[in-house]
Amino acid sequence: MNVSKPPVRQARGDATRRAILDAAETIFAEMGYAAARLEDVAQAVGIRRPSIVYHFPGKQELYDAVEADIFTSMHAFVVERTDNVSDPMARLLGLLDAWLDFLVARPAAARIIQRLTADVGPRGDDPVRFSETALRDIEAIIAAGVAEGAFRPITATEILNGVASGSLFYVCNGRQLGAARTYDAADPAELGRYRALLHRLARAAVQPEAG
Amino acid sequence: MNVSKPPVRQARGDATRRAILDAAETIFAEMGYAAARLEDVAQAVGIRRPSIVYHFPGKQELYDAVEADIFTSMHAFVVERTDNVSDPMARLLGLLDAWLDFLVARPAAARIIQRLTADVGPRGDDPVRFSETALRDIEAIIAAGVAEGAFRPITATEILNGVASGSLFYVCNGRQLGAARTYDAADPAELGRYRALLHRLARAAVQPEAG
Repeated sequence: MNVSKPPVRQARGDATRRAILDAAETIFAEMGYAAARLEDVAQAVGIRRPSIVYHFPGKQELYDAVEADIFTSMHAFVVERTDNVSDPMARLLGLLDAWLDFLVARPAAARIIQRLTADVGPRGDDPVRFSETALRDIEAIIAAGVAEGAFRPITATEILNGVASGSLFYVCNGRQLGAARTYDAADPAELGRYRALLHRLARAAVQPEAG
Repeated sequence: MNVSKPPVRQARGDATRRAILDAAETIFAEMGYAAARLEDVAQAVGIRRPSIVYHFPGKQELYDAVEADIFTSMHAFVVERTDNVSDPMARLLGLLDAWLDFLVARPAAARIIQRLTADVGPRGDDPVRFSETALRDIEAIIAAGVAEGAFRPITATEILNGVASGSLFYVCNGRQLGAARTYDAADPAELGRYRALLHRLARAAVQPEAG
């Protein structure tokens, strides 16, 4: 199993904990929460099940730690790209680019977020326990753009569903559309085309009506 | 468990087979393939497991029948909306509206399609075995629009990821964004707003460059 470690991950905790989180992210992404087993994670890391339980008491706790890590990293990425930007459109494109680049670098995170939309569990009790930061990031930018009159009246949920969600599909669909339609989401030319489309769609979505 | 039977379903086969398919669609949608059990489907229908096995030998066969039914119905819906339309833009909007209306009427199908994007299984061996008709529907429309010069050079995959996929999020996210952001995807006003955004995005995506 390919457990890559791109720079978009939070570097903290000891090496074993980090290796468990990385392997778990890949396994939860590929199999879903229900089918994933702590034994699979242990095997991917090359440790035994009790070593995982030392760090994470059970599957739910391990899953929660993975999801928390994804959204903490994603939020940090957005802050880095938007913190010193004041123009509303530049802030929106900065956030959308940050999400796109984060997901391209960390495709397992994209699959886990995809599952969050479909699953009743494992976050059915509180679906936004960890993703709340991402929702607040986009809400702040959309609300400010609308308040300044730079954007037409539109909600963050509309932009999330209509525009931002496409980046998840772009990252996840590379090998899901059949052999004849396979593409590499990380290929610079492919990514450049998708980014240009994303910007075009974002501008169209928020553009105030003429007149 | 609420097993609704909207008019977008194919009416065929005997009543028990249809009831099994309806219940299975809801259960696969909510739990995912791995966690779903034939026992759960039997219980939802009010029959015993052997009665399911009489119609569908196993879980994979039942899942395949559900997915085949979804994409057959979806394709019929698109044909109905686009068959007598020749203008490329009207055909594209007709297809996107057909998909949106289909998913709103049949939200369990939306969750199953969402899962197809994330899952390695159950269709990992041939992810487009049943969805191929949907991909061909959009490919035919985009290719014709590009050939006629009505659309800029763009691929169906780009429209699928960047524009059409948002309808899945719109339908699935109604109760997934936390209590404060809950919405009803079937509410006419809500749906009208999303449809207007979808049309705006579709036009922006394919619009030829000025000059």
